[in-house]
Amino acid sequence: MDEWVTEIAASRRRAVARAITQVEEGGEPARQLLARLREHAAAMDAPVHVIGLTGPPGAGKSSLSDQLIIHLRSLGKRVAVLAVDPSSPFTGGAVLGDRVRMNRHATDPSVFIRSMGTRGDSGGLAKPVRDAATVLTAAAFDVILIETVGVGQSELDVMYVADTVAVVLTPAGGDHIQTAKAGIMEIGDVFVVNKSDLPGAGRMAKDIQDMLRVRDGRAQFAEAAEGWSVPVLLTSALAQEGADLLWEALHGHFEHLTQTGRLEWRRGRGRVREMREILERRVADELERRWRHDALWQDLQARVQSDRLSVAGAVDAAAQNLLKD
Amino acid sequence: MDEWVTEIAASRRRAVARAITQVEEGGEPARQLLARLREHAAAMDAPVHVIGLTGPPGAGKSSLSDQLIIHLRSLGKRVAVLAVDPSSPFTGGAVLGDRVRMNRHATDPSVFIRSMGTRGDSGGLAKPVRDAATVLTAAAFDVILIETVGVGQSELDVMYVADTVAVVLTPAGGDHIQTAKAGIMEIGDVFVVNKSDLPGAGRMAKDIQDMLRVRDGRAQFAEAAEGWSVPVLLTSALAQEGADLLWEALHGHFEHLTQTGRLEWRRGRGRVREMREILERRVADELERRWRHDALWQDLQARVQSDRLSVAGAVDAAAQNLLKD
Repeated sequence: MDEWVTEIAASRRRAVARAITQVEEGGEPARQLLARLREHAAAMDAPVHVIGLTGPPGAGKSSLSDQLIIHLRSLGKRVAVLAVDPSSPFTGGAVLGDRVRMNRHATDPSVFIRSMGTRGDSGGLAKPVRDAATVLTAAAFDVILIETVGVGQSELDVMYVADTVAVVLTPAGGDHIQTAKAGIMEIGDVFVVNKSDLPGAGRMAKDIQDMLRVRDGRAQFAEAAEGWSVPVLLTSALAQEGADLLWEALHGHFEHLTQTGRLEWRRGRGRVREMREILERRVADELERRWRHDALWQDLQARVQSDRLSVAGAVDAAAQNLLKD
Repeated sequence: MDEWVTEIAASRRRAVARAITQVEEGGEPARQLLARLREHAAAMDAPVHVIGLTGPPGAGKSSLSDQLIIHLRSLGKRVAVLAVDPSSPFTGGAVLGDRVRMNRHATDPSVFIRSMGTRGDSGGLAKPVRDAATVLTAAAFDVILIETVGVGQSELDVMYVADTVAVVLTPAGGDHIQTAKAGIMEIGDVFVVNKSDLPGAGRMAKDIQDMLRVRDGRAQFAEAAEGWSVPVLLTSALAQEGADLLWEALHGHFEHLTQTGRLEWRRGRGRVREMREILERRVADELERRWRHDALWQDLQARVQSDRLSVAGAVDAAAQNLLKD
């Protein structure tokens, strides 16, 4: 264990990869390893910046994060990427379009790219991603980029781990921000209108600004933002200057968090949100289990089906059976 | 009470309207009235056909149902319309665009139109709509048309009351069936591509057919359909022949249900689904209540926020507090 931790701290690629596999698998060995790594990370000078990059498929997240890696390397920063695909059972391999990027960065020891899938449990995706971020923090990466595939509840959960969330949209296909999943518009600290050479980009940026005026007027956002004015960037992965602008915005948000002392508060808030999500899923799973398998619940359904019991009466009986006072 | 029931049975407009207000208000008087009306309805010759008309705003549902009313009147049928707007706190009045239709049909004693709002409780919208349908059944209407405004979970719930659900879509605005709320595509017994003079109508109809092939291959739909082949109609409210086609399809579905003995099974299934929806909301409300107000839960959140307790540990403690074994 001591040797393993030393190798992770020295950012030895194989040791880091094995550690992530270990924390994904969970159990007692993972707990011990994470405790050691947290100790190690706590003693480090500067906090690692965990960035979430999300948005609908086709928005150009992969190209943009690829440009971002190149830009960060030019600044001498060590970068780790976690590509999260909740719909994929694969993990640990280079699924997604990562092989291309893997090849480009394969010989650079300061870039680490890892795909994470899901095992379909109801514990949520945020925990394995958070644990992987702990490993990468101990391995002295400066920036951890969490990139999601698709937009679902799981992707939103993952974003609870990020210090800064960038939402990437594009006017391609005549998309409007109204068609973006509602949750995604709520979580952005930075918005990017990518493929901004396409028609409709300016309009989309304006729509986002309008949405932000409403959003950030609401109490829970006013508290969270505390002086951060959410930038809306126009980028084009083709033009290659997008990564520059994006990094400036992302880094600006992180400086805002550290200078206002909000970083720990925000990380805590992410954990509390994750707690709520997992709890909701736990309860929904239990409701589903009784609905399908509990004899009492089956009887209630049969009596409602044949109109021998009212809907309201059946709901009362089932709730009584499920919930503690 | 006796006199009231007699007046409802004689379809006296004021008595019917007052009865719906009473069942909306609930309580013991509503229960007694509904029991009497159910008795009365049970003794009637033919079952009333309860039709649900749903679809996104702008699909032309109102015009289509207006045409349908005219067509049904030409066939000598008595028609009641319940216009349900879950986002509106108004009830009993002529909100929506109903005033226009009200005017047109105001002097026709065989047409009854009523708007229903919501009181925002978590008992669901289906119960007041189902109870109103009981009143209208006792009042000897032949067809009850439930029309929803917007597409949300509440509108889907309301559809559990319908014997036949028509989903109205339109190619206007370049809509695709992929952008229609998923739930709505699951519940249609009849699909209508309205404004079919617009480009893209044929393509949309084909997309719906493709979707239905997948949907109706799944086990729960195969059971529910039992030989019903879902029609996809092209209509245009402008051309005025749409209502004719639509009625043929709706009536065909109802004949399918009565001839195969599926009507009671389907009504029971609607009640069971409503039970599930209300139960889920009851449980979600209780979780929300404890999350906000329970001292133990507040403490768990505080400890997760400050990293003194793991997310997993907090979820376990809260679930233990909420759920019976």
